[in-house]
Amino acid sequence: MKQLIKYGTVVTASDTVQVDILLDGEKIALLGENIVPTGDMQVVDAKGKYVLPGGVDVHTHFDLPMFGTVSSDNHYTGHKAAAFGGTTTVIDFVPMDDLSLKKMIDQWHTKAEKAAIDYGFHMNITKFGADVLKQIPGLLDEGISSVKVFTAYNNNMRLMDDQIFEVMRVAAKHQMLTMAHVENGDVIDLLVNEALAEGHTAPIYHAETRPSWGAVEASLRAVALSAMAEAPLYLVHMNAGGEVDQLAYAKDHGLAVYGETCPQYLFFSTDDLRKPDGAKWVCSPPMRTKNDADRLWDGISDGTIDVMGTDHCAFYFDGRQSINYEGVPIAIPGKELGIDDFTKIPNGLPGVGDRMPVLWTKAVNTGILSFNQFVAINCTNPAKLFGLYPKKGCILPGADADIVIWDPDKQVKYGVEVAQHRTDYNLYQDWLLTGFPETVFLRGRKIVDDGNWLGERGYGEFQYRKTFSKQM
Amino acid sequence: MKQLIKYGTVVTASDTVQVDILLDGEKIALLGENIVPTGDMQVVDAKGKYVLPGGVDVHTHFDLPMFGTVSSDNHYTGHKAAAFGGTTTVIDFVPMDDLSLKKMIDQWHTKAEKAAIDYGFHMNITKFGADVLKQIPGLLDEGISSVKVFTAYNNNMRLMDDQIFEVMRVAAKHQMLTMAHVENGDVIDLLVNEALAEGHTAPIYHAETRPSWGAVEASLRAVALSAMAEAPLYLVHMNAGGEVDQLAYAKDHGLAVYGETCPQYLFFSTDDLRKPDGAKWVCSPPMRTKNDADRLWDGISDGTIDVMGTDHCAFYFDGRQSINYEGVPIAIPGKELGIDDFTKIPNGLPGVGDRMPVLWTKAVNTGILSFNQFVAINCTNPAKLFGLYPKKGCILPGADADIVIWDPDKQVKYGVEVAQHRTDYNLYQDWLLTGFPETVFLRGRKIVDDGNWLGERGYGEFQYRKTFSKQM
Amino acid sequence: MKQLIKYGTVVTASDTVQVDILLDGEKIALLGENIVPTGDMQVVDAKGKYVLPGGVDVHTHFDLPMFGTVSSDNHYTGHKAAAFGGTTTVIDFVPMDDLSLKKMIDQWHTKAEKAAIDYGFHMNITKFGADVLKQIPGLLDEGISSVKVFTAYNNNMRLMDDQIFEVMRVAAKHQMLTMAHVENGDVIDLLVNEALAEGHTAPIYHAETRPSWGAVEASLRAVALSAMAEAPLYLVHMNAGGEVDQLAYAKDHGLAVYGETCPQYLFFSTDDLRKPDGAKWVCSPPMRTKNDADRLWDGISDGTIDVMGTDHCAFYFDGRQSINYEGVPIAIPGKELGIDDFTKIPNGLPGVGDRMPVLWTKAVNTGILSFNQFVAINCTNPAKLFGLYPKKGCILPGADADIVIWDPDKQVKYGVEVAQHRTDYNLYQDWLLTGFPETVFLRGRKIVDDGNWLGERGYGEFQYRKTFSKQM
Amino acid sequence: MKQLIKYGTVVTASDTVQVDILLDGEKIALLGENIVPTGDMQVVDAKGKYVLPGGVDVHTHFDLPMFGTVSSDNHYTGHKAAAFGGTTTVIDFVPMDDLSLKKMIDQWHTKAEKAAIDYGFHMNITKFGADVLKQIPGLLDEGISSVKVFTAYNNNMRLMDDQIFEVMRVAAKHQMLTMAHVENGDVIDLLVNEALAEGHTAPIYHAETRPSWGAVEASLRAVALSAMAEAPLYLVHMNAGGEVDQLAYAKDHGLAVYGETCPQYLFFSTDDLRKPDGAKWVCSPPMRTKNDADRLWDGISDGTIDVMGTDHCAFYFDGRQSINYEGVPIAIPGKELGIDDFTKIPNGLPGVGDRMPVLWTKAVNTGILSFNQFVAINCTNPAKLFGLYPKKGCILPGADADIVIWDPDKQVKYGVEVAQHRTDYNLYQDWLLTGFPETVFLRGRKIVDDGNWLGERGYGEFQYRKTFSKQM
Repeated sequence: MKQLIKYGTVVTASDTVQVDILLDGEKIALLGENIVPTGDMQVVDAKGKYVLPGGVDVHTHFDLPMFGTVSSDNHYTGHKAAAFGGTTTVIDFVPMDDLSLKKMIDQWHTKAEKAAIDYGFHMNITKFGADVLKQIPGLLDEGISSVKVFTAYNNNMRLMDDQIFEVMRVAAKHQMLTMAHVENGDVIDLLVNEALAEGHTAPIYHAETRPSWGAVEASLRAVALSAMAEAPLYLVHMNAGGEVDQLAYAKDHGLAVYGETCPQYLFFSTDDLRKPDGAKWVCSPPMRTKNDADRLWDGISDGTIDVMGTDHCAFYFDGRQSINYEGVPIAIPGKELGIDDFTKIPNGLPGVGDRMPVLWTKAVNTGILSFNQFVAINCTNPAKLFGLYPKKGCILPGADADIVIWDPDKQVKYGVEVAQHRTDYNLYQDWLLTGFPETVFLRGRKIVDDGNWLGERGYGEFQYRKTFSKQM
Repeated sequence: MKQLIKYGTVVTASDTVQVDILLDGEKIALLGENIVPTGDMQVVDAKGKYVLPGGVDVHTHFDLPMFGTVSSDNHYTGHKAAAFGGTTTVIDFVPMDDLSLKKMIDQWHTKAEKAAIDYGFHMNITKFGADVLKQIPGLLDEGISSVKVFTAYNNNMRLMDDQIFEVMRVAAKHQMLTMAHVENGDVIDLLVNEALAEGHTAPIYHAETRPSWGAVEASLRAVALSAMAEAPLYLVHMNAGGEVDQLAYAKDHGLAVYGETCPQYLFFSTDDLRKPDGAKWVCSPPMRTKNDADRLWDGISDGTIDVMGTDHCAFYFDGRQSINYEGVPIAIPGKELGIDDFTKIPNGLPGVGDRMPVLWTKAVNTGILSFNQFVAINCTNPAKLFGLYPKKGCILPGADADIVIWDPDKQVKYGVEVAQHRTDYNLYQDWLLTGFPETVFLRGRKIVDDGNWLGERGYGEFQYRKTFSKQM
Repeated sequence: MKQLIKYGTVVTASDTVQVDILLDGEKIALLGENIVPTGDMQVVDAKGKYVLPGGVDVHTHFDLPMFGTVSSDNHYTGHKAAAFGGTTTVIDFVPMDDLSLKKMIDQWHTKAEKAAIDYGFHMNITKFGADVLKQIPGLLDEGISSVKVFTAYNNNMRLMDDQIFEVMRVAAKHQMLTMAHVENGDVIDLLVNEALAEGHTAPIYHAETRPSWGAVEASLRAVALSAMAEAPLYLVHMNAGGEVDQLAYAKDHGLAVYGETCPQYLFFSTDDLRKPDGAKWVCSPPMRTKNDADRLWDGISDGTIDVMGTDHCAFYFDGRQSINYEGVPIAIPGKELGIDDFTKIPNGLPGVGDRMPVLWTKAVNTGILSFNQFVAINCTNPAKLFGLYPKKGCILPGADADIVIWDPDKQVKYGVEVAQHRTDYNLYQDWLLTGFPETVFLRGRKIVDDGNWLGERGYGEFQYRKTFSKQM
Repeated sequence: MKQLIKYGTVVTASDTVQVDILLDGEKIALLGENIVPTGDMQVVDAKGKYVLPGGVDVHTHFDLPMFGTVSSDNHYTGHKAAAFGGTTTVIDFVPMDDLSLKKMIDQWHTKAEKAAIDYGFHMNITKFGADVLKQIPGLLDEGISSVKVFTAYNNNMRLMDDQIFEVMRVAAKHQMLTMAHVENGDVIDLLVNEALAEGHTAPIYHAETRPSWGAVEASLRAVALSAMAEAPLYLVHMNAGGEVDQLAYAKDHGLAVYGETCPQYLFFSTDDLRKPDGAKWVCSPPMRTKNDADRLWDGISDGTIDVMGTDHCAFYFDGRQSINYEGVPIAIPGKELGIDDFTKIPNGLPGVGDRMPVLWTKAVNTGILSFNQFVAINCTNPAKLFGLYPKKGCILPGADADIVIWDPDKQVKYGVEVAQHRTDYNLYQDWLLTGFPETVFLRGRKIVDDGNWLGERGYGEFQYRKTFSKQM
């Protein structure tokens, strides 16, 4: 089937121009100034609309077991919510269980059989040994070209510095990108234990026991390890202003270091954790201060920060009430698990669908980001850094026909209903947004149109990603 | 006529991908993954080549009277040289004579009747008065959306600070961009007079009498004037490292300030002025130091500097020998005019054709700039800032079919013969370059092919430029 | 007469230690750990007190004709107020009238015959010519080793850049320090004329017509001129945050550039100019913003800013009511002159006596400045930079016995009554201060003691200052 | 006995003035402008000389067991060498053996019975446990107000981050200063093992296995830990330029973080390690690059770095030949131990005596540091930070009469003979120095005079140091 998107203004990471787009099956076939429709073409009128590449969110956690429950969005519900927000590709993290990487990858493939949008996997490396190192190059055969390490979560996911160094070195040797979650695990554990011993159980202690200086130093630590290992590095979910300072420092020194932040760190602060429903904002790393957010905004505006992710990991605020899921009542325990102990609040919050609509209103409409910058951080840069480009992340012939027709005039009162995440709350509840995805194509298929879901379980395809390349 | 450029790798300011391009007459009609040629199409095989937008050089001086002579490249010879170097659009400066702007614009249109590539005009504002201010908005009707002011050349081209402020304010009100040549005119004149009084006549004194601190302060002065006038600003031919510092300072403060440098400042220094043929490097502002060049390199690499210009203003090193020009022997006096007095050396040097080939070898091949950054600073950014985009500066349907097929493997021993400028020297004489334009299209017409000139006098068209817009 | 100050804690720019001080006549004779008093010594008990060098305020304007009136504090009343605030030496600016510097210096000596504290003169250079340059070296014979230039006040006090450059060069050649008042005179005049034309007459327009970007660029302009002239430079009354940035930039480049701010810029903002009595805050440069003040605080705390001055130039808020001065009713017109026109408000405000008490409470008690830093910026640094050291600015044998015994526990409700300036208002009215000068010695003579004035007209001596030396 | 030092120019951290000094027994009794000698006074003529406080070197390792040998200077020979170089007080590190701090302190007191100059102790905390934390406050009773931790030397001296955090917190609670040796222990061990496995045994591998990025990140890590623990921090032997960047970053954020560098890092580089006798330069952290040294120089010049230490830990280059020590032939194995294995080269080099003479010539004579800055970093700042002030580090009545009469004109061909360290080499061999200590007083006693040693074993006194105070 051929589809012709006419009269829209195409936005790429550098260009903004009115161009028609011909889709042929799953691919973009042609860009043309004024393509004359023929009988075999279905015409989509995009007059007055912006036409963007489908969003790429490289930081999601679907169906992830945690704290005796599981993140409430799975590879179908989460994908669907993503699509409503203009995102057509996600990369999910495969946790490491025992020493066999393949086993968990397989398990994740099974979970993802219900995928509604395209997806890839990162591999967490949270246990260490010679045998683990040996398995890393083989990830490329699995279509996985990025690994993630943690400097926090002692005795659980943390690797020690020399282990991180070794992982980075092996990854770099095989053109893989190392991602790092950077906090100071030692200090966190100590402060958490002290807080609990003192009877501090409220959500705010989640932030107080994870001080931002620990994130700042750990960001430079990861940078230094990568510099010594001659490895490219990607800092996930940057949240402290000082992390941006250190990322800028790394870039000034010519290092191949990249950074991601997430919308929640731009809009919220520890004040939100102090609210009666503060548990909604519990994720790791935690919310910071207004000053931190200001520095993050500067960082995305001046290009220091390369990517907007979400760290989507939804939980119900109150998961005790059963929901009806595909005809079956289920209950997925959520934030209420930590009602008496902040360390038991599942860490994470919804966001995969919020990312682009919220940023459009708050960053593009306000002039903080140009249209092109919006596309760069949400689509093109993540696709390039993670080996999806030019299949994903751009509007060019040969690319997958992943396209968002964005109505810049659409007014939406946003919130849990609109967002479609499988959870009972939304951080941006009742925000008034101007500009919203109208139609979303995934590989040529309309999966969202005017608020209607046209996608389907299992339509999403696993993406075999290419190796890391510096060309940005 | 339709032409199909097949199998090439198209490079834009953000994308790099193999795509076919169909040209229909003067325009790009289609981009397609694999466009099947039909009988009415002439196929150009670009296999193994890069396909770039035609270069845009927004800083040239053709046929410019100076010091009793005239710059030796005119609107035909200079255009031709530009084309050999991959540049298909230039913007030339119209000098101001008396108080009527229109008169000189007309004169420049007459000079440019022989244009071989597309061109626009900037208007110098070097005299001041209420009547001058009144004429500025009318420039838009002439297709001129940028004006240039000088803080140097006292009693000649310099405007005082309040005059610059007023020009900026009027320009901003009408969405025009103000360009500024920033040096400290006062100190220069004083030092020049002293140098001459002391009998210092050699070319090096051209640099010694124009100290870089004067350029640094004047760059911030222009920034401050533009901040106070709420006007966008473009700093031409940045040459001192401190100017980059101040440009970064302006950008950090959220100002709409943009910067241009030129290749000569990246590769040469005052040492060259000390050579026996130092006059070849005499231009204003002068060559600086290695440290300055390092800071400029950082500035183009990290995006602080937006545009690569040339300030092309060629003169013969020895203009006394007559040349044969279109069948007529002529003599165009050159650098020899200043053999006994550095202040009489015509200011300027060739470069319009050197820009892209030299940068490709020295910046792209070395990894300092990505392909996309190369296109951004040489093509897309200048087109955007000066109201030519998306007609120029991009490869998209509807744009002019200005295209360079770049052979990345071509080895060239560069120099005056290859460069084609109408002068007897080249700054990059005998440099070995790898990567060179093979075929150059201007509005669909091949004007350079495999070293042959296929262009013609008068084919170049004047570009009515749009107003300035912040969207970068 | 010998006096022994016992049991006090002496504070210098680097030391804080309990030491006794023996004064012999006008000089400090001895410092001793425990000097045993003999019969010829008068003992002053300083137990629990700090003993500081007398303050040095290098920026005052006494008895200065302006706008048809005169600054209300003269060389007696202003000196007396200074002394109450712990300052024992001032340097006043001699305005330039016609081309003879000597004439005005003589006039200033006549005015200063009533001096109550020690004083020196700076010479304004506000007219230019070869004959002026020739007179500059002769200033040293007059005991004047510093000159001041202005980049603002066009057609009045401003010199053009080349003239400033020449003054700096001559000054540097003779080891004199050039001081600069930096604003952009061109833009100010233009905006003032426009404001008046639009009927804007309120005090706030004094600030609105002197935008801070003009001060920022002019600070770098002065820095650049000094760099090119190889001359040391002193930036007076820094007020904009950007000036501190540029001062830091200059110091990072190894230049001999020094900076002064004044308390009013730390504590007030344009908001104060918007008050009904906003004229009280009218001085040049004007009040800025909270952000500017923050940057100034950082600058004094981290040592970027070297000196605290006052720019004391008092006027009555309402000078129409006659005052009784030395038995004679007089009226000194003041701020009311500008009631209908902000350009007619005399520029200036009181401060010479406020400086040290206000800073003690707001900077030392708060931990922003150490005791030593307080002494450095108020006493030692100004004395060193202006050739008064070690006669002034330190507590060492051989130095003048200018000493302040500071009571750290004294609580004062500050204001016009306490401050003793000859004017009807004080910027710090009703501020609660903790820590205040108790006893002030000038060359061994108690001139203030426990709130009583013991000084006298004519006791102050002119200070023949030494040439500038880099040793800080 | 009274001694009168007349006619000298006294230099303190802020003052430079000609003053006489009367010593009474061990103390400075008086400073006077012109003290008239009486019969009971011995007059020392310091005309034309500078008179400085005795140097304070807070970083020495005397008689320290390492790698099966011991550092060759003990508490007598090292002290003597220190004195020849103008240093009259040292602080030595007490290593931690088992969990009892007191035991090793006692051992160090025994070693130090032969002390020739005054001395204090820092306590290394290199093992961790609740019982260790409990002992820390008791150090104050021992006169020890500073502890040192290491982020390197895994399984040996390193503490983990949470342990460092806890030590800092306890130290801060008791007003003690935590010192940190910052390198990345993990990466070092890994690289060392790899180097050895690859057969790399030469001294240069000492540097190659300790990359500077590890020091840079660890410096920020220590800063962050101290920020979280609200503890003051002192970074020892800063060596990498990036450490200075991070120290400046910490200070900009208002943290109480201080830094020390040592002369060897200013003058030498990894090039020296590549020499045939490269083992002479083996110390930890290792020599870095010219760029690093440049940044260190900037740091001491602009005040970012507070203290000059030495990390004196001398070894013989060839310790196999027996020396005659106090009439007894002994052999102290030295650098030859590592002739086949760089990891066996004893880490350390001589310097306690070199510090002030070398810096005078290279920093004061060159104008990089003022006289006052020289005194600040060598005498006053270390005394203040480590609780010795004002007994040490200043020239004021009541202070110990530790005084250096410095002859600024003395020319010395420096080297192992002059330096007097007990080792067979000197890093500054054959350097020509101008300016040298002539006479050195310790508590009133001449211990060095005109090249003669007048000191004696056991004259040095242990200094009970006060707690840390922020007042600098």
